[in-house]
Amino acid sequence: MTTTEKPKYVYDFSEGKKELKNLLGGKGANLGEMTNLGLNIPPGFTLTTEACLIYFKSPKKLMAEIEPMVLDHLKHLEELTKKKFGDKKNPLLVSVRSGAPQSMPGMMDTVLNLGLTDESVLGMAEQVKNPRFAYDSYRRFIQMFGDVVMGIGDEKFERILDKYKRKISRTAQDTDLTVADLQNVIADYKALYEKEISSSFPQDPFKQLFLSIEAVFKSWNNKRAITYRKISNIPNFGTAVNIQAMVFGNKGDNSGTGVAFTRDPSNGDNIKFGEYLTNAQGEDVVAGIRTPKKLDEMDKEFPEIYKELKNTMLKLENHYRDMQDIEFTIEDGKLFILQTRNGKRTPSAAVKIAVDMVKEGLIDKEKAIMSIDPDKISKLLFKSIDEGAIVHVLAKGINASPGAVSGIAIFDSDRAEELANSGEEEIILVRPQTKPEDVHGLYASSGVLTQFGGKTSHAAVVARGMGKPAVVGAQDIEIDEENKEFRIAGTVIEEGDYITIDGTTGRVIEGKVPLVEPEIKGEFLELLEIADEIRTMGVRANADTPIDSNKAIEFGAEGIGLCRTEHMFMAQERLPVVQKMIMAQTKEDRQDALNKILPMQKGDFLEIFKIMEGKPVTIRLLDPPLHEFLPELSTVLLERQELQMTNSLSKTLLEISPLDEELKKKNKVIRLIRSLSEENPMMGLRGCRLGIVWPEINEMQVRAIFQAACELKLKGVNVIPEVMIPLIGMISELQFVKAQLLEIVEETIKEYGVELDYKFGTMIEIPRAALTADEIAMEAEFFSFGTNDLTQMTFGFSRDDAEGKFIPVYLNKEILERNPFEFLDQDGVGKLMKIAIELGRKTRPDLKLGICGEHGGEPSSIKFAHSIGLDYVSCSPFRIPVARIAAAQAEIEHKKK
Amino acid sequence: MTTTEKPKYVYDFSEGKKELKNLLGGKGANLGEMTNLGLNIPPGFTLTTEACLIYFKSPKKLMAEIEPMVLDHLKHLEELTKKKFGDKKNPLLVSVRSGAPQSMPGMMDTVLNLGLTDESVLGMAEQVKNPRFAYDSYRRFIQMFGDVVMGIGDEKFERILDKYKRKISRTAQDTDLTVADLQNVIADYKALYEKEISSSFPQDPFKQLFLSIEAVFKSWNNKRAITYRKISNIPNFGTAVNIQAMVFGNKGDNSGTGVAFTRDPSNGDNIKFGEYLTNAQGEDVVAGIRTPKKLDEMDKEFPEIYKELKNTMLKLENHYRDMQDIEFTIEDGKLFILQTRNGKRTPSAAVKIAVDMVKEGLIDKEKAIMSIDPDKISKLLFKSIDEGAIVHVLAKGINASPGAVSGIAIFDSDRAEELANSGEEEIILVRPQTKPEDVHGLYASSGVLTQFGGKTSHAAVVARGMGKPAVVGAQDIEIDEENKEFRIAGTVIEEGDYITIDGTTGRVIEGKVPLVEPEIKGEFLELLEIADEIRTMGVRANADTPIDSNKAIEFGAEGIGLCRTEHMFMAQERLPVVQKMIMAQTKEDRQDALNKILPMQKGDFLEIFKIMEGKPVTIRLLDPPLHEFLPELSTVLLERQELQMTNSLSKTLLEISPLDEELKKKNKVIRLIRSLSEENPMMGLRGCRLGIVWPEINEMQVRAIFQAACELKLKGVNVIPEVMIPLIGMISELQFVKAQLLEIVEETIKEYGVELDYKFGTMIEIPRAALTADEIAMEAEFFSFGTNDLTQMTFGFSRDDAEGKFIPVYLNKEILERNPFEFLDQDGVGKLMKIAIELGRKTRPDLKLGICGEHGGEPSSIKFAHSIGLDYVSCSPFRIPVARIAAAQAEIEHKKK
Repeated sequence: MTTTEKPKYVYDFSEGKKELKNLLGGKGANLGEMTNLGLNIPPGFTLTTEACLIYFKSPKKLMAEIEPMVLDHLKHLEELTKKKFGDKKNPLLVSVRSGAPQSMPGMMDTVLNLGLTDESVLGMAEQVKNPRFAYDSYRRFIQMFGDVVMGIGDEKFERILDKYKRKISRTAQDTDLTVADLQNVIADYKALYEKEISSSFPQDPFKQLFLSIEAVFKSWNNKRAITYRKISNIPNFGTAVNIQAMVFGNKGDNSGTGVAFTRDPSNGDNIKFGEYLTNAQGEDVVAGIRTPKKLDEMDKEFPEIYKELKNTMLKLENHYRDMQDIEFTIEDGKLFILQTRNGKRTPSAAVKIAVDMVKEGLIDKEKAIMSIDPDKISKLLFKSIDEGAIVHVLAKGINASPGAVSGIAIFDSDRAEELANSGEEEIILVRPQTKPEDVHGLYASSGVLTQFGGKTSHAAVVARGMGKPAVVGAQDIEIDEENKEFRIAGTVIEEGDYITIDGTTGRVIEGKVPLVEPEIKGEFLELLEIADEIRTMGVRANADTPIDSNKAIEFGAEGIGLCRTEHMFMAQERLPVVQKMIMAQTKEDRQDALNKILPMQKGDFLEIFKIMEGKPVTIRLLDPPLHEFLPELSTVLLERQELQMTNSLSKTLLEISPLDEELKKKNKVIRLIRSLSEENPMMGLRGCRLGIVWPEINEMQVRAIFQAACELKLKGVNVIPEVMIPLIGMISELQFVKAQLLEIVEETIKEYGVELDYKFGTMIEIPRAALTADEIAMEAEFFSFGTNDLTQMTFGFSRDDAEGKFIPVYLNKEILERNPFEFLDQDGVGKLMKIAIELGRKTRPDLKLGICGEHGGEPSSIKFAHSIGLDYVSCSPFRIPVARIAAAQAEIEHKKK
Repeated sequence: MTTTEKPKYVYDFSEGKKELKNLLGGKGANLGEMTNLGLNIPPGFTLTTEACLIYFKSPKKLMAEIEPMVLDHLKHLEELTKKKFGDKKNPLLVSVRSGAPQSMPGMMDTVLNLGLTDESVLGMAEQVKNPRFAYDSYRRFIQMFGDVVMGIGDEKFERILDKYKRKISRTAQDTDLTVADLQNVIADYKALYEKEISSSFPQDPFKQLFLSIEAVFKSWNNKRAITYRKISNIPNFGTAVNIQAMVFGNKGDNSGTGVAFTRDPSNGDNIKFGEYLTNAQGEDVVAGIRTPKKLDEMDKEFPEIYKELKNTMLKLENHYRDMQDIEFTIEDGKLFILQTRNGKRTPSAAVKIAVDMVKEGLIDKEKAIMSIDPDKISKLLFKSIDEGAIVHVLAKGINASPGAVSGIAIFDSDRAEELANSGEEEIILVRPQTKPEDVHGLYASSGVLTQFGGKTSHAAVVARGMGKPAVVGAQDIEIDEENKEFRIAGTVIEEGDYITIDGTTGRVIEGKVPLVEPEIKGEFLELLEIADEIRTMGVRANADTPIDSNKAIEFGAEGIGLCRTEHMFMAQERLPVVQKMIMAQTKEDRQDALNKILPMQKGDFLEIFKIMEGKPVTIRLLDPPLHEFLPELSTVLLERQELQMTNSLSKTLLEISPLDEELKKKNKVIRLIRSLSEENPMMGLRGCRLGIVWPEINEMQVRAIFQAACELKLKGVNVIPEVMIPLIGMISELQFVKAQLLEIVEETIKEYGVELDYKFGTMIEIPRAALTADEIAMEAEFFSFGTNDLTQMTFGFSRDDAEGKFIPVYLNKEILERNPFEFLDQDGVGKLMKIAIELGRKTRPDLKLGICGEHGGEPSSIKFAHSIGLDYVSCSPFRIPVARIAAAQAEIEHKKK
């Protein structure tokens, strides 16, 4: 390679544009874009993500290569700012900030005020006539450099700072420190640095700069960044490094720094929204150290600047056609924009903003739909606290991420993760404030409560991103981390005690309280209607009860894709009859019990059919192994042994045997459970196999379905039943069961003298069914992919065992990227589905195809379902809005191809 | 259709030839062939199998259509025999016999002496000057017609016959009956007939004929014929009907009837072999009613005819180039041949005959191999009774089918079937004699013992066909069917008592006795060598121990295809160490236990490698879930409860608590078993998943394998280890495990400083592995199809549960044709294998492919394995000869295509 071909690793901001996001990172690209828009951007330049990736291959070589390029751009920066890097009189200070192609807030490192030394701090103090500001900047720089670049724990610096603040008063802020205080702090900081690093704090600004650049590169692969990427599915792009002339929000009361959103990120309202701090640097707002002021207070404090800021915000939103999250700094009454990016928002804000922007003509419907993360939409169906409930409100904090949730209070992220891994599902993480190190704890929890910080604090941003309820800045609670408890007005909440947080209102409540399910209305409804206009794939619900069916209709289901009849067997008052049926010794006894169950099942179907009037209802015949309806063997064995011992004792002492009868009964139950127990019930006598061995159960169910259907039909209700036979692996099974049941169907319809449209179909959940789908389709009018079981059989994973025993290990060791029970495995299970579809449609071109596993409600799986040509997905009622949007996105993406 | 186009439903024997077997049945075609060979065949004609199949569609129409054809041929028969059908003076009598394209001995119906009436019997008596013969024939005809055509139970006729025999003496034979006796018998027979049928015995011979033809047609679909076809995999061809002029073996002492084999069907010796009865009709020999004479006794009794018969036998064998089973009748000193067919033979006879015929130049090697039923070859490895064992011989019978076997005595075929279905594997069916109705009982048993009958009796023929040991005609035992026992010299054997039969020597022995495994030598060895010359597919053994390995070598294995390492864990002295390893609380404790297991495993491998010197040994790493090595949870729970109750009792009474320590131990074990227990262990933490979660076990195993291999290599022993990783479903699993183990392998080899060829490969037993075989093949140097698990996962069948709970029902209802765990499911599992092979070889053209499920020893599965291009099959040592022959047949069949 000749020198002329050397890759371009450094871009001046003026060379940047938003299309170069992958190369320059989001921050760098947008700084370029804004520079070219003519906004007031401190000048600077960007080291590319490409440089970062090469750094990880050969760090020394890369650093040597970029050095002359950086120095060259630095020279240009000196010219623009008329300052000189490392100058004793008028030093140029810079910030060094990471900036990845996708936003990873707080995940990577930043160094501010770089370029200060013992000498230049004097010059700067002199130059700006503000020694306090200069020393404050210097102590901040030493602290950040020490922490970020050299790895000295930030808390060690904070302890020194605290010591000096306490000398003033118990409640002193860092702004209360005098120049003398700050000089002491700096001396102590430098001593700490020397002690920790065994060399003194570097006084060469070039050394400071290159060490910082390396630190930012390295931060791409620190643990929290890797975790965040994994959770957020962000590829290994590398980070860019932005080196920018500093502007100072901490120059005094005519300075400040803040964050502004062009719309309210928590509800999407079209109002400017944000927070700022006077006399502070950017990190202070985000870190939640001081509680900031609301953006509209600027109208009084900085009216001109506020006006300018609002205009800039409007300009940026119109330019990017999306809600913007902007960082700004005011230096001596002059506004600088340091960053803009598409703002993170709550799901409800996302919906409102999308719909509003369509109405405002800013974006079209397709863009509106594509702007929504369908998975987070499910969070929109937020629960709220039952208004009628009597609750004990402990405290009120800031409503940072909506929704109410109850859970046990846990005071430490590691502990939260540990509990979640062991199956605990209701955890509220309670922290003074969260830091990037807490991401795994937030991920493991159902909600977060912090003592400090505002709506743009770390906890708030991350919780909103994850769609989890958050209450932040609940300053009245006193957290005692050591004893794992918090106190408020005489109440002590210990680790493991239940609390409820309401992220919609900011309330913190003692104990578990009744929660109310959400409704769909307003912009959410409008958005779903837009999705329905676009999508071509149907959306049905998995619903077993009239309650589910009502929810399904409410959330927009176009039918029931899976009605599991066994749930009807499990009802408390029915179970004894079901057990009697199973225990029956003769065909007559069994028939007797079944005759009692028939009207119950029929009653269910009557209600469900009525609710689903005019829409297809797919009913799956009994699927689980019968022993699921019986008590545990070991329980009964222990009961018998106790009986036996009591018995033998009674006989010895009392010479009577009063329990012999009971013992006989127990023996009978034991024999039955034994005869039904299986080594691998998942692959045993269940599904259609049950119907072949014990046909009476299927017959009763079909009778119940068609009696209900015919009765309603007579009353003019349009009923469309679809009978689904589970666990088919061979055409011969389907032929046998179908022939058996068809007779009853025809007989019932004839009896009522009605006309009824119905279908017979099958689940495709056994690999063999997929492999022989051409045969199966000869008898089946529809296929419904039961992807839960199909995943189990294709992987040879028993879900119950795998998720407890080895899937976590697999995820951890990256043997699995994602849990295949949550995200459809497109390479394996998906291949089998494609084979089934191809073969099935060859036999029967109008074969109706759907999916009714849990994957039917998961966006990436829904898009896959669309891509392989399914007619519909079926999912739990609460996932239906997700499915409607994901289906619309699938169609949009499909059309683009 | 015009009359000229009417199908030809009837063929004169002179029109027949052996190539028309499918149309005329085996018997009809061979009668034609023999007629044209110029042998002395009573004339006759054949109704085609086509007519039979059409009969089942429209019986009346078919009967009307064939009537004129039959009458036409009958007229021709009258001309040839110079007798007249239904004539009072010189009546033509005929036999009506079934004859299917494939031999189904005794399965279908036959009527002899048809044409006799009250009047014609007088004429016949007069004409042949032998009234006893005439009346004997008439009573036989009434009996057969009544039984076969009209369905009156044969035992009712026998009861009448017995009554008259007893009047003469307790031991009288039917030949002792006088004309007067026979006239009485006939009168009683006719009365019985009238009582049962409500009409008198038909005196119109045409009516007799057409009713009999219909009866034979119908017999194709009687229950025992259907069962036989199912067991023998015979398609629904239909049966032909042969109508043939009668010749009479019961005409007096210059007459007789017999069965002759051109070679000995029990051992294949090239000597004429057979049995005959003087003054008897054909059915008498087969039915085993009188004990027949040996064929060579004819040399004295009928020397001329014997010579003629021997010439005919030679002629027929040379003509058919196969051992012939010939039925003949001597009428008044004249020899008639009534049937010839390829004779059924024991597997050892089949082998000897095939090899001999190759040597004699009668057939080529390929024909020799194709003449063998490979599945029955396994029976050749007959067990014999340990010569050193002291045995109590109860009785001696005829050695009708070789091999020794022990089992419980069962006196009834239904009961035998019932027990076999419930899992009993050791059953000896004990019957006075067997009839076609007993086929299901014979099928369910391991051997058969009869009181009556000779080597050509039903029990003998069927047992030989099935390759099961049989002792027949053990006349000294007295069977009491009612009380389900037999007595012999003071010993009573009741139902369920163990006996041993030795079909090689004819001994019946009390109890279970030690049996000795067979060897391969003589013609068997020669045949296997012929197979090896022909076959292209390799044959390996599944062998886990040095004993297995020795057997494998003895039986001709070319390597080990599956060495299951867990069997080494199960040894009694090792299990406690293995349990310790599993129960270990720390990594150190586990390593400690593993360090103890390592030398044990290494010792096994040293021995196995030595035995298999120069041949590849595929070792599968630990596969089963760990709880298989621990006690049952419910057992330990009950033990704990007992402890607790004793404890609380002791505390109350003695105020001591001596068992607290034990209780703690139990609690620990319970916790462990609970933590390891799984809902569906088949799909749980096992196979490579174990190695990923607990890598230390795999590491120990690989260390043991390679230490053993290297040590032997140093000593100059050529060792070829192939490490097989089980239960792979994803390439990422294989990468992870392989990387982990490769390190140990390389380290070990380096330590010993040897050169060692080794391979890493995987089982293909998870559907997902087959579906993504292109990826898997990137890391695997070989695939071994684990068709047991692959069948489980593809069908979603847990073998343990399915075979007990619903596969019998499936087979019974014909939802499954064959058990997919015995016969590879080519449509489903086979399709998955084809996908895997195609994908795997695309990535790695030299990928080595084998099969190591039980199917590797089943002939139809072996042929399938050949057809899809596998390099080898691996099966249990005892199935290796089967596999060698099946592989040769596969190659021959392949070349023909």
